[in-house]
Amino acid sequence: MKVAYQGIEGSYSEVALFKHFGKNVKAVGHQTFEEVFEAVKKNKADCGILPFENTITGSLAMNYSVLLEEELYVIAEVFLKIRHNLLSHKGNKVENIKFVYSHPQALEQCKDYIKKQKIEPVPEYDTAGAAKLVKERNKMEEAAIASELCSKIYGLEILGEEIEKNKNNITKFFVFVKKEKIPKNLKKEKTSIAFKTKHFPGALVSCLQRLAKNNINLTKLESRPIPENPWEYIFYADFIGDVDGENVKLALSEMEATLSFIKILGSYPLSNKYS
Amino acid sequence: MKVAYQGIEGSYSEVALFKHFGKNVKAVGHQTFEEVFEAVKKNKADCGILPFENTITGSLAMNYSVLLEEELYVIAEVFLKIRHNLLSHKGNKVENIKFVYSHPQALEQCKDYIKKQKIEPVPEYDTAGAAKLVKERNKMEEAAIASELCSKIYGLEILGEEIEKNKNNITKFFVFVKKEKIPKNLKKEKTSIAFKTKHFPGALVSCLQRLAKNNINLTKLESRPIPENPWEYIFYADFIGDVDGENVKLALSEMEATLSFIKILGSYPLSNKYS
Repeated sequence: MKVAYQGIEGSYSEVALFKHFGKNVKAVGHQTFEEVFEAVKKNKADCGILPFENTITGSLAMNYSVLLEEELYVIAEVFLKIRHNLLSHKGNKVENIKFVYSHPQALEQCKDYIKKQKIEPVPEYDTAGAAKLVKERNKMEEAAIASELCSKIYGLEILGEEIEKNKNNITKFFVFVKKEKIPKNLKKEKTSIAFKTKHFPGALVSCLQRLAKNNINLTKLESRPIPENPWEYIFYADFIGDVDGENVKLALSEMEATLSFIKILGSYPLSNKYS
Repeated sequence: MKVAYQGIEGSYSEVALFKHFGKNVKAVGHQTFEEVFEAVKKNKADCGILPFENTITGSLAMNYSVLLEEELYVIAEVFLKIRHNLLSHKGNKVENIKFVYSHPQALEQCKDYIKKQKIEPVPEYDTAGAAKLVKERNKMEEAAIASELCSKIYGLEILGEEIEKNKNNITKFFVFVKKEKIPKNLKKEKTSIAFKTKHFPGALVSCLQRLAKNNINLTKLESRPIPENPWEYIFYADFIGDVDGENVKLALSEMEATLSFIKILGSYPLSNKYS
């Protein structure tokens, strides 16, 4: 099986990919989120894995909007705790490090550590690319901030482990396929939908009532403005339940009267693995 | 008046600041979001301005969580359309440019243009910093992607105007003060709140019903997981209405029975200026 992800070997997306699929798949890295969506749409990959939400930075609105528009289907959610490490050459010591390369966000998240060690931060495109660069340049005064996986891939040593300040940096990834490729035996325990309510007062409430009445628990609800029309909103909601279950089918059909649009983004197994 | 923002001169945050306040304030740039919050809390600035939501990247969860914890109050919302420009030295031509410096996100958003012009992208910490760097290095083969304001500040020429792919890249900023400094004549037309619902089925619906019943229109509703407790949620909501208005006061008091926590983040004038 071929799985498309964004980044190069050792990126956090690849870490999430292996966490979910194990090592027996072919992981194919792409430069951008867009290219991952394209690879799945054009059957160059069997499925894709991309970040959709992070506890620090929030939801990735753009990725959600692609799910809204394209004939794709979410078949899994994967949670990954982001752990940053200081990587440099084997046998090196933190005291030797003068420059550290990484993505601006990772540098920011490890700011306290970098400052304490008196290391100068240098921005790079991504964390894994920084690790690769440090390996290639082969200078003892240089290090990268990247995943543990990068230390293995690029033959670097971990000089500082879990050096991020905020220990609750968790990214939620979705695994998605083309609609005609939904696995037949998919365990559907949680469902993600997008909808627009009709323009009348209380439309959203009435619509959520249908879910509550049918004992369906919301786990996410998010309004996103529609830039072309600042007074209209798309709602993204997750709830516990199988999209083909009787109570969900009933709730969704009852909701229809208050909605101008609804789309099932996916129905998939519930993940409890946050670490 | 002293206003704290994140970034250096010419950053999009400073553009938003001037859009809202005009030029008759002292704009003080800080390295991080955290330092802006600190400056306001410690009375080093009269107010702060920070991004809270973007149409492409979504809400900035971390900034919202600071508002939740600290004794701060939102007194204005400011919308800024992000327009990226290719800046280089006066008299220069696009054909001469071989390298373009900017923040990875800006480079990504202008990817199509950069590719078409066969320019090599180089990551930098921020857009304004890239403009400053290009000016200082003074090489005709180098350019930056940054705001129009940067062209004035750093004496650069706009070689390519509005080169971003997505024309609906709008950032929402909040202007906030310490609670004891809320202006007395503040026009309160829109209100932002955060709340946690009690653990019973339909708690969220019941709470939104109180708003609907009192003719209060929601303009944003967003659940954020609480990382320490994956099954609990904080909701952020915006609605049209003065927090001191009779209908809002009634709705909020009626909501209390279903809530374990509520905080008014601010009540401020409605902004319709999206450009």
